[in-house]
Amino acid sequence: MANASKKTINVGLIGFGTIGTGVVKLLQENGKLIEQRVGAKLNLKSIADLDITTSRGVSVMGKRLTSRTDEVLKDPDIDIVIELIGGYEPARSFLLDAIHMGKHVVTANKALLATCGDEIFYAARAKGVQVGFEASVGGTIPIIRTLRQALVGDRIRSIYGIINGTANYILSKMADEGRSFSEVLKEAQSLGFAEADPSFDIDGIDTSHKLAIVLSLAYGKKVHLKDLYTEGISKISQQDVVLAKELGYRIKLLAIAINRDHHVEARIHPTMIPLDHLLANVNGNFNAFHIMGDASGSVFLYGQGAGMMPTASAVVSDLVDISKEILKGPSGNSARPDMEVADSEEIRLLPMDDVVTNYYFRFSALDRTGVLSKISGILAENNISIASVIQKGRKEGGAVPVVMTTYKAREKDVREALVRIDDLDVVPDRTIRIRIEDKKL
Amino acid sequence: MANASKKTINVGLIGFGTIGTGVVKLLQENGKLIEQRVGAKLNLKSIADLDITTSRGVSVMGKRLTSRTDEVLKDPDIDIVIELIGGYEPARSFLLDAIHMGKHVVTANKALLATCGDEIFYAARAKGVQVGFEASVGGTIPIIRTLRQALVGDRIRSIYGIINGTANYILSKMADEGRSFSEVLKEAQSLGFAEADPSFDIDGIDTSHKLAIVLSLAYGKKVHLKDLYTEGISKISQQDVVLAKELGYRIKLLAIAINRDHHVEARIHPTMIPLDHLLANVNGNFNAFHIMGDASGSVFLYGQGAGMMPTASAVVSDLVDISKEILKGPSGNSARPDMEVADSEEIRLLPMDDVVTNYYFRFSALDRTGVLSKISGILAENNISIASVIQKGRKEGGAVPVVMTTYKAREKDVREALVRIDDLDVVPDRTIRIRIEDKKL
Repeated sequence: MANASKKTINVGLIGFGTIGTGVVKLLQENGKLIEQRVGAKLNLKSIADLDITTSRGVSVMGKRLTSRTDEVLKDPDIDIVIELIGGYEPARSFLLDAIHMGKHVVTANKALLATCGDEIFYAARAKGVQVGFEASVGGTIPIIRTLRQALVGDRIRSIYGIINGTANYILSKMADEGRSFSEVLKEAQSLGFAEADPSFDIDGIDTSHKLAIVLSLAYGKKVHLKDLYTEGISKISQQDVVLAKELGYRIKLLAIAINRDHHVEARIHPTMIPLDHLLANVNGNFNAFHIMGDASGSVFLYGQGAGMMPTASAVVSDLVDISKEILKGPSGNSARPDMEVADSEEIRLLPMDDVVTNYYFRFSALDRTGVLSKISGILAENNISIASVIQKGRKEGGAVPVVMTTYKAREKDVREALVRIDDLDVVPDRTIRIRIEDKKL
Repeated sequence: MANASKKTINVGLIGFGTIGTGVVKLLQENGKLIEQRVGAKLNLKSIADLDITTSRGVSVMGKRLTSRTDEVLKDPDIDIVIELIGGYEPARSFLLDAIHMGKHVVTANKALLATCGDEIFYAARAKGVQVGFEASVGGTIPIIRTLRQALVGDRIRSIYGIINGTANYILSKMADEGRSFSEVLKEAQSLGFAEADPSFDIDGIDTSHKLAIVLSLAYGKKVHLKDLYTEGISKISQQDVVLAKELGYRIKLLAIAINRDHHVEARIHPTMIPLDHLLANVNGNFNAFHIMGDASGSVFLYGQGAGMMPTASAVVSDLVDISKEILKGPSGNSARPDMEVADSEEIRLLPMDDVVTNYYFRFSALDRTGVLSKISGILAENNISIASVIQKGRKEGGAVPVVMTTYKAREKDVREALVRIDDLDVVPDRTIRIRIEDKKL
């Protein structure tokens, strides 16, 4: 199949949904430009989807439209198969079948790569074919290439990412328009930004899939999703958004990876970051990464993390990379070591209990003498030092919010302290705890 | 030389200055990590420099240190030659000699690539070797890879870049600390950020070199430096910095490329951009690019544009890319089409006279009746509509600044109007004109 004299690269697409339609559109609209840049035509030969009757508003003239994926997977003319159906099965089988047929594959399927990535990369390596997955994380942001190529000489010290557009849209609207979580979520759903079941986005699951992929690229090792501490944004209230701002912070759902030399600290949770931090100004459904390399220093990447055309752009970039490889002809050693399979050891993740960071607490305290002393006493007994306190208003006999920020404290100490504090009679509601990242860019 | 079974890639370095020292350091410190990622050892075999006696603070144990570049260029063991001496000659000859010897080359030399890039890329193509030049623009920012790979499927609508760290450092300090251009320049020189002869940086020449490279990647065509409108920052006064802020802008030295379909508009000049624009918040010696692709939408990249280790990181990333190619073994068709030689046509640049943008004018007007009417009359006769006016203070018989911003106007009209205005008896000093970019990210 790989052929130096070949001037047409045949592509098969499985999944004619939003992103698939974007790929068809982009190859049509910019086909000439791409041909000029690649030195060969990228010919989308076949499209497989369960629904082959509904119009997608793009021309499929001259393409085979089929409901049988075999017609793509078994077509000897097809060099590259794009999988855009998402989910685990049958996406996994389609990718493995394509690889076994000796075809290169391109996918945007982060959920699959985060769980079965090893299986797919090993199969591809064994067959000497490539797996393009730039579209799986950060949409149009070249995060995969940046970690694999641009920063390949760097030891990655840390990565902070806003990598779920829906969660970021909700948090941005809450901060800028003073609206509640549920109100903004409903709006996002009616606008089509959020799914009917939004849990993947708002519970941080999608973010954990993407962080798992990023971790394997940055640290060359596999990570189990269940080991990634993952906390969503559904408990963020307007009150905390306002208090954060008063304290000089903005709340973002961050994916965090920090290289602690012997361990990697990796976690996903709502985080307060300084208002003047570049990540604090990533709003709406944009995504961004702040990477710190030991040689490169700060690198910040920002762009559309999802959407039809931005994701299609990333898919096409993989098609072009692979096409250029095909055009070079068969090489002596196609099984080049890829970062993602360079080391099959698992990453030694720092247990969440051992994470040390700053915290914001909002206590619900009955307005009685001695409450503050009780709370601060428990904190002190658990090695937690208070950096600032805000206590507002008074409510006769009712609960008032008491807000504290801490100096560096250990997660385990915080967890144990909050259990004791929430057990106090004078603390009627559960304490709200949001972690703070104070590091500047 | 290219050999699939080869597990050591030999590298020769010409130029043991700051960046060269960074490369030696990075290959030493992260050598094991890089070897794991590449699947082969990158062995820096020889270093050539005129000065081989001064200690650079890095170990050169086991390396040949020589003042004769031939010992690098003619060594049959060396696979890749890094050129880091800068300037035109002998850098050009060294690169061409290395290519003719069948060696891949890596360079950070933007001045050379902007002027003799064609010659070097054609020679490399003819010999089937690669030219790595990620370090030539934007230091650690992966701008070359982003244009060549990530956005390869996109028609690039526009690129706005802050790509000279020295100029940006000066403008940032002027804005944040209320200091004068000459004072900050002197400080930058004493800190080693600015050269004794700073004209390359402050007159926009370095920026024009980098923009020329970016243009050839984005539009696949050659551009002549003399056709790039280039205006430096030496005439920016503290008064304009303050007035810009009042109007909601920050002044940055921008490299601008806009795709006008039949023409490319390309220019380098101090520019007022809205305070909330991502580029307005790029400070100190950081660099950044805002790219708009037709499919990708906004992509923003930020990082260290210069400096020992960030630039070394970019050089090493090219070494790794090329090493991976070498490890794949000889390919059937190594003369792959590169964007930079895909089309030898010249870019059709829009003549500067035809550029249409918004302007800021600061007139020095004698405080007499009718002055404002004379100025605004001339503007109207030249099809320039005033968007806002600020006139401050009064000075009996003296000159007062009159500040105006305009709606979209044509460069030629502005030029002609300002000649007439500056000829007026009531306008003693030359009018200051700064272009405005109002587009949001």
